[in-house]
Amino acid sequence: MSTDTQPTPDGAPSAEEFEALQSRIDELEDELAAVRSDVDDDPQKMVIIATKGTLDMAYPPLILASTAAAFGYDVTVFHTFWGLEILHEEKADDLKLSSVGNPNMPVPNVVGALPGMDRVTTRMMEKQIADNEVATVRELIETSIDQGVEFQACQMTIDLMDYDEDDFFDEVETGVGAASAFQEMVEADIQLLV
Amino acid sequence: MSTDTQPTPDGAPSAEEFEALQSRIDELEDELAAVRSDVDDDPQKMVIIATKGTLDMAYPPLILASTAAAFGYDVTVFHTFWGLEILHEEKADDLKLSSVGNPNMPVPNVVGALPGMDRVTTRMMEKQIADNEVATVRELIETSIDQGVEFQACQMTIDLMDYDEDDFFDEVETGVGAASAFQEMVEADIQLLV
Amino acid sequence: MSTDTQPTPDGAPSAEEFEALQSRIDELEDELAAVRSDVDDDPQKMVIIATKGTLDMAYPPLILASTAAAFGYDVTVFHTFWGLEILHEEKADDLKLSSVGNPNMPVPNVVGALPGMDRVTTRMMEKQIADNEVATVRELIETSIDQGVEFQACQMTIDLMDYDEDDFFDEVETGVGAASAFQEMVEADIQLLV
Repeated sequence: MSTDTQPTPDGAPSAEEFEALQSRIDELEDELAAVRSDVDDDPQKMVIIATKGTLDMAYPPLILASTAAAFGYDVTVFHTFWGLEILHEEKADDLKLSSVGNPNMPVPNVVGALPGMDRVTTRMMEKQIADNEVATVRELIETSIDQGVEFQACQMTIDLMDYDEDDFFDEVETGVGAASAFQEMVEADIQLLV
Repeated sequence: MSTDTQPTPDGAPSAEEFEALQSRIDELEDELAAVRSDVDDDPQKMVIIATKGTLDMAYPPLILASTAAAFGYDVTVFHTFWGLEILHEEKADDLKLSSVGNPNMPVPNVVGALPGMDRVTTRMMEKQIADNEVATVRELIETSIDQGVEFQACQMTIDLMDYDEDDFFDEVETGVGAASAFQEMVEADIQLLV
Repeated sequence: MSTDTQPTPDGAPSAEEFEALQSRIDELEDELAAVRSDVDDDPQKMVIIATKGTLDMAYPPLILASTAAAFGYDVTVFHTFWGLEILHEEKADDLKLSSVGNPNMPVPNVVGALPGMDRVTTRMMEKQIADNEVATVRELIETSIDQGVEFQACQMTIDLMDYDEDDFFDEVETGVGAASAFQEMVEADIQLLV
């Protein structure tokens, strides 16, 4: 660092003092950039743990995932327990509402328990979804994949449910476990469990 | 801080060098204030996505919302799917437990499936709530509104369920969707899905 | 930025100007360290609100809690409503799946409603868990406690369910409420509700 060499009167800083100050400012700038980068930690990231496999509860993770991706977020959805069914290529089109055990449904339990009633209530909701031009589960999965959402299937649950890696949509990542899902959550700005 | 006062004939900083250093410090101060403001981002904010409409699952979002508001948090609860019923002026007083499909209830499924059993188990819990002086759902909503909690009803679900804007408590905001709920989550310090 | 009045040759900075700059740098360093400490806020902390008491839904909070603890996180699990049963020493070994109201189960509702069917579907899952060498609920609780996970039982729910403090595992903290759970969430980096 070359400096000007004019003599200075009493009390004026020396070149050494000045350079010490410059070094402290250099360090402050580096450190501040590091803090800024920790605070910003771009790209922004969301992780959703999807544990449910009913038709109604398939929507919150998929709608939130595709919305976040549309806003430029990095999104990972880790599917575990019943949530696996959302990623199951055959079952995804056929997720059901329960006609019993859901007091929000307009069907008494004793009727709901009759054979076939899960299908009836499910068709009622599917019709409502179609009539209101709400996307289907498969459409939301495809939109999400197009937008870069990463879908992961919990390997422990795959084993527990005797599923095969080939049962899932092609883009689904298998072989992942809770440790990896947790580490994704650590890096995320938003973590949700459905 | 006292510094050495020996005149230094050689290498003392010029006015230009000194001013350059001052500019760097000015910038550091501004940038640090910006980082500090990002880190603090007052007021603190919590967003809850409420998806359930049973009597038991109405409590977690309402208790957490009113607690957070009491601690000075800005709170938004976005109600979607069955969660809408909590905000439905007629239904809010009449949320039900299920007597079947909930193995934590002390009623066998075959009894629970009898007509009227949802009402019986619901009354059991309502009595427990009253006996223990726990606030009712309506009381918690009113307390939360008084404390400034913002309740939002998902417009897509309103359409899906054929509800009307007037069905909800006066203070409920309608016409909001997942994109707006997501943006509120982005600004929040705590995000939960019930 | 030109200041101050000591004449110096060619506008070189005076001792006063130099010391003012040093003070500003001192302050910047202190403030930056404070921001850094806010951003880092070690130790990292996770809070889980556990509201469910079925066999399947006992796993997500316990697996995430023990995983986070293994990664060095400070973990608190606040159990409320049906989530209390996970901490109940007698009930923890006997959590059930529902054979009705869960359309993901391969049992029609009309069969599921028969007496004893909750036990049948539960045994099916318990066998799958054992066959796949997945830890039991009790094993996960013990592992978590060994790793320093703090389990809390919501006092309001204890009263509501007429439980006694002695009903829970020894290490469970009772007498805690929503306000304390909320404050733990405020300090946490990851908050989840199961």
